[in-house]
Amino acid sequence: MKDKVLPSITEALRLTGVKDGMTLSFHHHLRNGDYVLNLVLAAAQKLGLKDLTINASAIFDCHLPLLDLIRDGTVTGLECNYCGALVGKALSSGLLAKPVIFRSHGGRLADLARGSARIDVAFVAAPTADSRGNISGKYGRSACGSLGYAFSDVQNADRVVAVPENLVSYPLTDFSFSETEVDYVVAVERIGDPAGIVSGTTRVTRDPIGLLMADMAAEVIKASGLLLDGFSFQTGAGGASLAVAYAVEKIMLAEGIHGSFASGGITGKLVEMLNKGCFESLLDVQCFDLEAVRSLRENPAHREISASQYASPLAAGAVVDSLDTVILGATEIDPDFNVNVHTNSQGLIMGGSGGHSDTAAGARLAIIIAPLMRARLPLIVDRVQTISTPGRTVDLLVTQYGIAVNPLRAELSARLRDAGLKVMPIEELKHLAEKICGVPKTLKNENRVIAEVLYRDGTVIDTIRQVN
Amino acid sequence: MKDKVLPSITEALRLTGVKDGMTLSFHHHLRNGDYVLNLVLAAAQKLGLKDLTINASAIFDCHLPLLDLIRDGTVTGLECNYCGALVGKALSSGLLAKPVIFRSHGGRLADLARGSARIDVAFVAAPTADSRGNISGKYGRSACGSLGYAFSDVQNADRVVAVPENLVSYPLTDFSFSETEVDYVVAVERIGDPAGIVSGTTRVTRDPIGLLMADMAAEVIKASGLLLDGFSFQTGAGGASLAVAYAVEKIMLAEGIHGSFASGGITGKLVEMLNKGCFESLLDVQCFDLEAVRSLRENPAHREISASQYASPLAAGAVVDSLDTVILGATEIDPDFNVNVHTNSQGLIMGGSGGHSDTAAGARLAIIIAPLMRARLPLIVDRVQTISTPGRTVDLLVTQYGIAVNPLRAELSARLRDAGLKVMPIEELKHLAEKICGVPKTLKNENRVIAEVLYRDGTVIDTIRQVN
Repeated sequence: MKDKVLPSITEALRLTGVKDGMTLSFHHHLRNGDYVLNLVLAAAQKLGLKDLTINASAIFDCHLPLLDLIRDGTVTGLECNYCGALVGKALSSGLLAKPVIFRSHGGRLADLARGSARIDVAFVAAPTADSRGNISGKYGRSACGSLGYAFSDVQNADRVVAVPENLVSYPLTDFSFSETEVDYVVAVERIGDPAGIVSGTTRVTRDPIGLLMADMAAEVIKASGLLLDGFSFQTGAGGASLAVAYAVEKIMLAEGIHGSFASGGITGKLVEMLNKGCFESLLDVQCFDLEAVRSLRENPAHREISASQYASPLAAGAVVDSLDTVILGATEIDPDFNVNVHTNSQGLIMGGSGGHSDTAAGARLAIIIAPLMRARLPLIVDRVQTISTPGRTVDLLVTQYGIAVNPLRAELSARLRDAGLKVMPIEELKHLAEKICGVPKTLKNENRVIAEVLYRDGTVIDTIRQVN
Repeated sequence: MKDKVLPSITEALRLTGVKDGMTLSFHHHLRNGDYVLNLVLAAAQKLGLKDLTINASAIFDCHLPLLDLIRDGTVTGLECNYCGALVGKALSSGLLAKPVIFRSHGGRLADLARGSARIDVAFVAAPTADSRGNISGKYGRSACGSLGYAFSDVQNADRVVAVPENLVSYPLTDFSFSETEVDYVVAVERIGDPAGIVSGTTRVTRDPIGLLMADMAAEVIKASGLLLDGFSFQTGAGGASLAVAYAVEKIMLAEGIHGSFASGGITGKLVEMLNKGCFESLLDVQCFDLEAVRSLRENPAHREISASQYASPLAAGAVVDSLDTVILGATEIDPDFNVNVHTNSQGLIMGGSGGHSDTAAGARLAIIIAPLMRARLPLIVDRVQTISTPGRTVDLLVTQYGIAVNPLRAELSARLRDAGLKVMPIEELKHLAEKICGVPKTLKNENRVIAEVLYRDGTVIDTIRQVN
């Protein structure tokens, strides 16, 4: 029996045969606390490796050291589903010669499955593992809970290296993926900073505009006719998204509605709703806080799922296809309901689709919730700078001034009007904001393309250009 | 979203595109109570399908209707890891023109992974499933516990059809494999006869010879030096195998030894040992009784594993590679320690390797335990009729008359002698039996080859010939 435990990342790079031009993958469950991507790339740099491509489910600003590795040619390619604003700004300045490839969480898996993306060696940051490579995110000082996004890396990579912080004796029975897929194990002292991995508490917004929009969104869900026994729901971890969960919970408890599941990234608020009987189960691709990690560890009704099961358009079935309602954000939206979550008003990369376009495509009701203007910049523009999610998959927009329903959903619009909700054409909301903020200048950018946005079907849905 | 629920097996055969010449797969977790293989093949016959190959992890005598389907040309190929005696006898008479392909549990997965076996459509008997194809063996009237052998089918088949008895509302969170791999769901009234699926109780042998051998085997394990904290163990469900578990438990409790895991097919006895602290965990590829099913459902230290994780020689790691000791049976053994578990004294098929050769290859100590003669037929023969497990992987033989150690393991032999155990050359045990029973006539069989036995590395280790 081959001993899988290696003394260093350097040794793992050697034994997995990493060569110039290869692709290394990383998952983002340690979020802005991750040390592993930087550790691996520093070792690669020391070995003099060049021309590597990084395929990471997401890049955060804790990965700023990546920029130096791009500058010296260690890394020449980047593929991710999300990119933090500081790294994003540097990429927008044209740091990489090759365009960054942006995918959605589901699209990444589909591209791996169809071979239009590939991984030579996957490095899996592992809160806990055993010496044979059984891995769990639920235990240890750096527990992050679900390892949903790493399943595809483990399954698709030619070689897999587990990088555990907490090495336990074989067998780790509560593994997320098993020894069958893991070639080497390199224990390190720290895989990340727990403060950046999960937040201890998740606080709902106290902003009155956020609370107003949350109540409107909950009313929309109720009026849509979907808020019945068996209801399924997804919302994010931001203050306004959480506020929607509170507002939905209030209705569900008041009316005795027993939902089926909540999915996606899971917060303590959704755990609370599970425990109050609002849902039968949580399908968890990523834990956003410590309460979610604890619940995933202890409650069998709270189940870790792979990103494929969450969102892959090529899987025989995915959770997003069974989803009733999803709450999503936007930096920009246009009259065709196209949504931008990739770039800011200056056109700088500061985010990415994540599961945005996947859930919008799958859910029966995809709700965008966003304030009509931010820092005197209107939300609704003539044409979004970057199409992250195509308008045909977006059902409606909730702002503090009113609700705009996609004209493709006339029946939904009628239901909301019948319920007395303030529904108006999206153009009217646009004019309203422009009256307050003025019409923003649209910057014509014909610079070099520095990123491609791939839709979940693998096609290029938009490009992002250099900003000088 | 495509509706996966179909009204009939016939419809599933149509929609999965099953055509003449294709391969259908089945798992054997319902053992001698399985209805699903017969149901599917009856539907295929009605559709007039011909020339099908059945790849089943095991065939039991409940599958006798298969013989008629072979006779009428519906089925012309059979691949399995085990075959019950009644079906086996018919196959031995030359019913199939093509040789039956016998594999080991690990070899089946390896052949699927390397493409030397393939599955067009997998039919998965499912004690419980939801409408999207999340499947569990732990719940329902026909609960069988682990679905370990079905993982490879689900992962490798072009199309997967779940055949649940108990259809529950989405999502079934405690799934063994998920909606991502399952194309269709066909609910049926009964997937099997619970009496044949699991036994309510598993009784240890009361046969004094079996008990004597069990005590000797336990003494061997102790003397081998492996019975320390961290000890790992596998034994079967037969009376004598269970008796070894009792004998090992007695030593472990008396000496305060805390083992690491027990693996393979799990019985209530091993559950009891887990609960008494003899082991930290159970790694379960198959539940043999109701107590094991209950424990798997309730105790997180009792973990379902895939057959790949159990035994695949091509996986990056498998449990058998970490196994200290395995207890195995034999119908015949020869002076080179080759073991036959495929054919009886007349050369008729009545079994198969299952995990026999996988665990023998992996375990540090592979013990064969068998009475020196059965019905006046000696266990030890000049040359086994069928090599199921090569002698180089077998460490020793325990019989009621003494212990024979493989000459390749001189150091082990010395340890056992030092411990005062009755170790003797295998030839001496052979002569002893022949003095009692006489020397059996060896039948020269030059008939047509009706089965090939593939070793876990994919090579043909032996052939089985027609018996007229």
